[in-house]
Amino acid sequence: MNAPKEIELWVEERHQEMTAMRYRVARTLFSGRSEFQKIDIVDTVGHGRMLFNDGLVMVSERDEFVYHDMIAHVPLFVHPKPEKVLIIGGGDGGTLREVLRHPQVKECVLVEIDAMVIDACKEFIPQTAAALDDPRARVLVDDGVKFVAGTDERFDVVLVDSTDPIGPGAPLFGEAFYTDVGKILTDQGIVVSQAESPFYEKTMQNTLLAILKTLFDKLFVYNFSNLTYPGGLWSFSFASRGLCPLKDFDPARVARSGLEFQYYNAGIHRAAFVLPEFMRRQVDGLVTLPD
Amino acid sequence: MNAPKEIELWVEERHQEMTAMRYRVARTLFSGRSEFQKIDIVDTVGHGRMLFNDGLVMVSERDEFVYHDMIAHVPLFVHPKPEKVLIIGGGDGGTLREVLRHPQVKECVLVEIDAMVIDACKEFIPQTAAALDDPRARVLVDDGVKFVAGTDERFDVVLVDSTDPIGPGAPLFGEAFYTDVGKILTDQGIVVSQAESPFYEKTMQNTLLAILKTLFDKLFVYNFSNLTYPGGLWSFSFASRGLCPLKDFDPARVARSGLEFQYYNAGIHRAAFVLPEFMRRQVDGLVTLPD
Repeated sequence: MNAPKEIELWVEERHQEMTAMRYRVARTLFSGRSEFQKIDIVDTVGHGRMLFNDGLVMVSERDEFVYHDMIAHVPLFVHPKPEKVLIIGGGDGGTLREVLRHPQVKECVLVEIDAMVIDACKEFIPQTAAALDDPRARVLVDDGVKFVAGTDERFDVVLVDSTDPIGPGAPLFGEAFYTDVGKILTDQGIVVSQAESPFYEKTMQNTLLAILKTLFDKLFVYNFSNLTYPGGLWSFSFASRGLCPLKDFDPARVARSGLEFQYYNAGIHRAAFVLPEFMRRQVDGLVTLPD
Repeated sequence: MNAPKEIELWVEERHQEMTAMRYRVARTLFSGRSEFQKIDIVDTVGHGRMLFNDGLVMVSERDEFVYHDMIAHVPLFVHPKPEKVLIIGGGDGGTLREVLRHPQVKECVLVEIDAMVIDACKEFIPQTAAALDDPRARVLVDDGVKFVAGTDERFDVVLVDSTDPIGPGAPLFGEAFYTDVGKILTDQGIVVSQAESPFYEKTMQNTLLAILKTLFDKLFVYNFSNLTYPGGLWSFSFASRGLCPLKDFDPARVARSGLEFQYYNAGIHRAAFVLPEFMRRQVDGLVTLPD
């Protein structure tokens, strides 16, 4: 006689109705609908706890280090004195955690539109959310677009840790928002933004880059490899008033920092800006390409 | 009244019973069971035609250029005179196609164990399989392990374009096979092998690297980003009698070749050997790491 068969729970992220990624679920931990979006946290068999916003993977405990290393450490090791940092979005706390590992950072303001993301992550994903209680963090539940338009503060580094340009993240891919971001940057300011998949979302990526190009002196794009984003390869944009992520990067500073990372290192910093040929062609004329 | 709803066909690759990737299918083109494995070819909505061996993605028309560029052009632009090349596996023809773009190559022998892979790809995936009819190609249906053990021929570059180390590909991850590969390499010979996922298959990857380390003077590992392999990030090993993929690489040779690629370029050649920190730790002591 066979043992009774257990049911299998799987969660699925569909992408453009042509591909999907599935994760086997051990148990569901949280499910809620906020004013802005559907929020789910599940504990998976292979990827630890995972956060989904509107059915899209935002965080998996197993590989969140990749995204969070690469959004934070690339600009923070380029800016000569990153004392004041702003994160738009990022309510899971992972980007904040990595920013605060830099002792030069005196304050990091995090502006998350959705209180439910913060509360749910604090309860169920402490691996990233523990940073939200750090004394150098100022966490605001507010619309990032409005915050940037209204604030008198100035920031050395702005990190746009957004969802995709559908739902509450949509205005974070717009020209009005980035015009205001330009106004709140200090003289050597850098803004790094989640810039979508060069394979699957080249139109979205190019739209964002075209907006940034009109507003900032320098524009670059760099890549990283994530387990849980469709296609694996994903991009960040790097825009600045003048700093170059390669010429103004001193690898010795990484060694001197004494910090240890899981994904980032000085070699990866430089290699991330080297683009595969198909992507060089896609972004040619929009961004500065390394020699 | 609603229009009658079409059924949706999806094909799924499961990975370690904890994650899965799914592709929406337009129609199935071929399904057969050879002496060695189950072989399926489907036409998908988003990724062109796809080949599955025993349920695992081998080729998708949309992104096969990534894998085939990186297995072929990295060693062929390092070896000073790659005249004779051997491919073990690779019955889809994609690796062969890229090898034959190098005019120095006088002959490329391809040894595929499974005639059904060759026949099915010739009929349904001409994008890769057309190369199988090239006059500089010699296609043998044979066991690669036996071929390497028995041949008197010598090769400048050997490409092990294998499936995973389960099923017919298993002996291609063994010490006996690589001992024989060492014997059929010319003095400056290079062997590049599909080396699995550094995220999901680090034990398999390290087992292969440990075998190669005992048999070859130089050993390196490099990465690429594929849409259709679990996790995206994937590796090749590079073993040689002495040639170094960085010190012995002249980027000007790529420009002089006049060849154009979709993924490979001289920058990617070098960047591919730069490893994320978690992977540096995994392979530390096994491979030479770039400075």
